[in-house]
Amino acid sequence: MELPTAQAPTPVQQGETVPPVPSAEAAADAVDVTALLERGRTLATPVLKAAVERLAPPMDTVAAYHFGWIDAAGNPSDGDGGKAVRPALAVLSAQAAGAAPEVGVPGAVAVELVHNFSLLHDDLMDGDEQRRHRDTVWKVHGPAQAILVGDALFALANEVLLELETVDAGRATRRLTTASRALIDGQAQDISYEHRERVTVEECLEMEGNKTGALLACASSIGAVLGGADDATADALEKYGYHLGLAFQAVDDLLGIWGDPESTGKQTWSDLRQRKKSLPVVAALGAGGPASERLGEILAADAKNVDFDTFTEEDFAARAALIEEAGGREWTAEEARRQHAVALEALDTVQMPASVRAQFAALADFVVVRKR
Amino acid sequence: MELPTAQAPTPVQQGETVPPVPSAEAAADAVDVTALLERGRTLATPVLKAAVERLAPPMDTVAAYHFGWIDAAGNPSDGDGGKAVRPALAVLSAQAAGAAPEVGVPGAVAVELVHNFSLLHDDLMDGDEQRRHRDTVWKVHGPAQAILVGDALFALANEVLLELETVDAGRATRRLTTASRALIDGQAQDISYEHRERVTVEECLEMEGNKTGALLACASSIGAVLGGADDATADALEKYGYHLGLAFQAVDDLLGIWGDPESTGKQTWSDLRQRKKSLPVVAALGAGGPASERLGEILAADAKNVDFDTFTEEDFAARAALIEEAGGREWTAEEARRQHAVALEALDTVQMPASVRAQFAALADFVVVRKR
Repeated sequence: MELPTAQAPTPVQQGETVPPVPSAEAAADAVDVTALLERGRTLATPVLKAAVERLAPPMDTVAAYHFGWIDAAGNPSDGDGGKAVRPALAVLSAQAAGAAPEVGVPGAVAVELVHNFSLLHDDLMDGDEQRRHRDTVWKVHGPAQAILVGDALFALANEVLLELETVDAGRATRRLTTASRALIDGQAQDISYEHRERVTVEECLEMEGNKTGALLACASSIGAVLGGADDATADALEKYGYHLGLAFQAVDDLLGIWGDPESTGKQTWSDLRQRKKSLPVVAALGAGGPASERLGEILAADAKNVDFDTFTEEDFAARAALIEEAGGREWTAEEARRQHAVALEALDTVQMPASVRAQFAALADFVVVRKR
Repeated sequence: MELPTAQAPTPVQQGETVPPVPSAEAAADAVDVTALLERGRTLATPVLKAAVERLAPPMDTVAAYHFGWIDAAGNPSDGDGGKAVRPALAVLSAQAAGAAPEVGVPGAVAVELVHNFSLLHDDLMDGDEQRRHRDTVWKVHGPAQAILVGDALFALANEVLLELETVDAGRATRRLTTASRALIDGQAQDISYEHRERVTVEECLEMEGNKTGALLACASSIGAVLGGADDATADALEKYGYHLGLAFQAVDDLLGIWGDPESTGKQTWSDLRQRKKSLPVVAALGAGGPASERLGEILAADAKNVDFDTFTEEDFAARAALIEEAGGREWTAEEARRQHAVALEALDTVQMPASVRAQFAALADFVVVRKR
């Protein structure tokens, strides 16, 4: 197969993924995002652990492994628990409704449970063997435990909210259920797109909105709902979270091709190895022009190639270079900026303390400049 | 291997599974159970279909196949939708609270959705290839669709209830969530017991209470909760349903060994082929005496036998005969009668119209004399 000249992998540098984002609020610059993420994690983790301990054996152990609290041998571990953007958003959203951050904690825990339910099932469906630098649950404990523990976490999410026995908890559960259904729809779309030769940018964005936007939307509003916010406020915060999710996913798609494996914990050219129809690929294919057409020919040939596993670093680098040449990388970076802007606009329609607004803005800034 | 003299399979006759149950209420004899089951089905099915139609493609089609509404080629089908005991109980329980049967319909639909979520996932985990005389979803549409559509039905169950936006719907969802968690716990126990040589009768009953009792408990009370019944009434109806579930499962375990394949839709000696540690087996093993000890030796040898698939009808018939000789069959039939009696006693603590009580009793009678 004739391929364009290969380029060496170029790890993404801080700020390079999405060139400087003008922060919506000067006040956002002053926010300590690390502390904000840490606060969400610190508030949510003990409650999350207590919830997981309710699971019948061996599901409690399997879940503890998934969350990185123990290793495969059952020994305590302080594994990478992820960025914890969702818990930070959930407790912050309680403050948007004038409530204490603690009011958002059951929401933070419920959202984390739903997120991890989807990871357990998606990793199995997608055959992914690694997550957060560790073997996935189905690899270590088998497919049945991955299904079962996923189901248990999903049920537990509703339990954690509904045992509050308040009207607002019912409202929060309803919003979480809507988000969960969107998550499942998104995974269904993701799977069906894998079998198609072409996917439009619109379809890709719809899928990513379901897979990532809907749950970030819920995380951004669930604390407010638990704090008694009205539906209009909750809807506006959901809008912020939804577009933040799309920005997040655009950055994820950039990292999935050009990310530094040291930071992301994934292989080089990870999404290309998985033949993922992510935004940069779909945008490049839809852009037209010689590089776009050449990319289309190569990917169509790849799709029929059974020896895909033997591809070298250079083969993937060549494809990444074509995607970039066709404009897929720049379009996706621009899309992250657009979604970031829409997310911040949504905040303007909500009455909330200026410091809370600044923290929402800072989390949005963080999401688009992260390296992992 | 030396085996006791084999007996020919003896299909169970109506009334033979559990010798004549004295009906708790003479009025129960006058109830047309077929009409009662048909009413639940007629009320719930259109709402269930409308809920399933909300699923994104191809999940709607996969779910329609699972429910027997279409065949594997996508053509309309009037497949076996099951006995529909749960919907009948849910609409009847609304009447126990003095509400119209229709009030129980969202509860009936939610319970059916949870039940079918668990069937989709359990069939995959257990590797079961047939359900209701048809190939299971994972056989026809693949494991990913079985996981995904199961997840979607589970989410839809909560959605159907919570969109009622009432306090009682929140209470009903909470009870359904508790039942769902029990269902998952039961499946976890079932899987772990498969890897153990011995299981006690108590462990087996706990597992069956989780797998079957909890959801029948929810079905028997959810309509009443939606109809505004207080927690004491709901708890009493749950108790009825829980013990009805244990009676149901005891009969299922008898049918799983001695049932007529024509009626059950399963193979002869179905549970023995799957080496299931069902109640008759566990009771026989725990009974002591020569037949019990002989059975223990044979099953221990079977557990190490890799050529299990080559076993003949006579091999299974010999095992069934030993289980019966050790008293496992009679103990299980007696257990069905005990649970049936406890279920009926629970009804006595609830104030409800005599005709509704007679219908609950008639459904309990039906469950223990059924042939499939």
